[in-house]
Amino acid sequence: MSGPWAALINGTAAHALDFDDNFAPAFTHATAVLAPALLSLVNDRKVGGTALIDAFIVGLELQGRIGRLMQPAHYARGWHSTSTIGAIGTAGACARLLGATPDQVLAAMSAASSMAAGSKLQFGSMMKPIHAGLAAKNAVLAARFAMAGISANDDPLAGDWGFAALTGAGDIGAEVMIDSLGETLEIETSGLLAKRFPCCGAIHRSVDALELLRREPGFLLEAVERIETSLPEMARRNLRFDSPADELEARFSGTYCMARMLADGGLELKHFTPESVRDERIAAWLPRIRLIAYDNALMVDGANFQATTRVYLKDGGVMEAAVSHPKGSPENPLNEDDLLAKFQTCCAWSGHAAAAEPLFKLARALGAAIDVGEVMAGVERTLRSQ
Amino acid sequence: MSGPWAALINGTAAHALDFDDNFAPAFTHATAVLAPALLSLVNDRKVGGTALIDAFIVGLELQGRIGRLMQPAHYARGWHSTSTIGAIGTAGACARLLGATPDQVLAAMSAASSMAAGSKLQFGSMMKPIHAGLAAKNAVLAARFAMAGISANDDPLAGDWGFAALTGAGDIGAEVMIDSLGETLEIETSGLLAKRFPCCGAIHRSVDALELLRREPGFLLEAVERIETSLPEMARRNLRFDSPADELEARFSGTYCMARMLADGGLELKHFTPESVRDERIAAWLPRIRLIAYDNALMVDGANFQATTRVYLKDGGVMEAAVSHPKGSPENPLNEDDLLAKFQTCCAWSGHAAAAEPLFKLARALGAAIDVGEVMAGVERTLRSQ
Repeated sequence: MSGPWAALINGTAAHALDFDDNFAPAFTHATAVLAPALLSLVNDRKVGGTALIDAFIVGLELQGRIGRLMQPAHYARGWHSTSTIGAIGTAGACARLLGATPDQVLAAMSAASSMAAGSKLQFGSMMKPIHAGLAAKNAVLAARFAMAGISANDDPLAGDWGFAALTGAGDIGAEVMIDSLGETLEIETSGLLAKRFPCCGAIHRSVDALELLRREPGFLLEAVERIETSLPEMARRNLRFDSPADELEARFSGTYCMARMLADGGLELKHFTPESVRDERIAAWLPRIRLIAYDNALMVDGANFQATTRVYLKDGGVMEAAVSHPKGSPENPLNEDDLLAKFQTCCAWSGHAAAAEPLFKLARALGAAIDVGEVMAGVERTLRSQ
Repeated sequence: MSGPWAALINGTAAHALDFDDNFAPAFTHATAVLAPALLSLVNDRKVGGTALIDAFIVGLELQGRIGRLMQPAHYARGWHSTSTIGAIGTAGACARLLGATPDQVLAAMSAASSMAAGSKLQFGSMMKPIHAGLAAKNAVLAARFAMAGISANDDPLAGDWGFAALTGAGDIGAEVMIDSLGETLEIETSGLLAKRFPCCGAIHRSVDALELLRREPGFLLEAVERIETSLPEMARRNLRFDSPADELEARFSGTYCMARMLADGGLELKHFTPESVRDERIAAWLPRIRLIAYDNALMVDGANFQATTRVYLKDGGVMEAAVSHPKGSPENPLNEDDLLAKFQTCCAWSGHAAAAEPLFKLARALGAAIDVGEVMAGVERTLRSQ
């Protein structure tokens, strides 16, 4: 399969469960675009692990810098940044991995800006994960264009008619894209957020807070009257389905996610199936859970925010917890055991439980690989041998 | 070659000379997207000429309806409608040709809205024609997604977070999309504009007016001091290069196009080569030609406008001509001989002069074909036999 199609399929697969990482400065699912795009380039030629990681870090940096230029306005307006900023930043990363000159990196990003689209209206449909696949495909295609000498405008992001202005981010000074460039790296300062729940990140803090309350001594499900959680309007709007019709909508249903944690004490892959969403126990809770939006201006650091969950008890009592950094965020990270456990869950979900540990080891050793293509061939062998 | 890639290459080729038709209601190069996309679908299965023409008309209708929703705001903001509206309308046409249900046509258009991008900043670079290719590719891909059962938001254009709002066309009532639907057809009421010159359509009226003045009895090139042409700000902005560096920029240079008509009495394919753009006779005229922008609000019918060209003579005299409908527009059409002559010129340009007449006949008979794929095979045989 040619590179762009492999990137489309693997990018879609990487994002299909909405269980992949978040990258705050860009408001993107950074890795779901970067990894499939970069890995699609290792088959034709020998690529070392160091070069792969280097390109990944460059891609994260580019996504972050573009995010600093355009966010949160771009995302708040309705654009799905993963498919827009994700494509543009990843195109630069792909060009880097292909040995591009700086001009070619810029041409790749410019070409990608001509392919970057996708509304958050698609949240809750199959197009949502496909957005990550399209971004990965477009990044590969744009990098190939640049390496083939296709000319493109050399100032595609800032300024009039630039991508930022076109997509509602306004006429922001482009200096944020180069301030302290090379001194600090997004991978160190911002890092990535590994999700603990396979659903929209906008509800994770609320669910974490509910979990805290649920673990309080003496907590009784029978005593709960109703629940409220407050979160910024931007997050509220992502959670579009208060009465989800299927598992796609359930991933973007704050009420559903909260009801699951309340009733079952967890939020797992098995809760996002057609049958699971029809669960009458859960449906009964939906009208008793309310999401309250507060002004986006009260968010901190652009992307980050606090969610406050209140449990109203039948006896008139109220329990309250607030969470700013969900479990999995750089400030509150998953440890190595947590990550392995998540990986095992995903492998089991896809029917490859026995492959989890050997694949995890292969992934962990990727940076030291002499030939990433050989590692990927090893991944394929491991999966086939199960 | 798979359908999407064939559509990408042929769409790019169709638009590479900027000699393909304009479609006023959508502000698109409609055929450069529609024809390559639809023709990429005739290889796998038998498609009759009637079905092909039907899908083309539907695609034109969809582009026009979306244009009525979003234009001229979308184009004025900086979006290259050919790659945005072109992709969405053409996706619906492709779905139609593939035998889609109405829901699938809508899903195809919704999926295409997640792929529709492209700024007019790319005018003057190789990305400009590639935009038509990308739109054709995206339309085919989106239609294939829909036929494969990929779900997508069922209200992707109007409303909050809809494509119109996201891309600056505002919150316009969607009723313009269905008013009198099926009663009148865009192909009849608006028609297509066949270009007479291989350059940005924004300068055609000005060049036509200059040609009129140049044919006045007693006109002498030596007597000309300078030239002005007035056109709407939207058209002026498309003509981005007053001193074009290469043939790509020359296609979007009003001064260059006017200088050519002034000095040589014509504007032909041979004038858009690297050597031609360096012609010193023409360069000397560039600073003596001025484009004056007037308020877009003075445009009529959305897309149409009047250009007024004034020739200032050294003796103080002034000649003036105004053109509203350039030669090639539905109101001032090319006749059959003109079209054949244009086709012959293009065939000769691509090294296939002898194929022009047989290919023209094949194209003219396309609507009556029992199997379009066979006609296309005939095109290939004709080209190979030269």
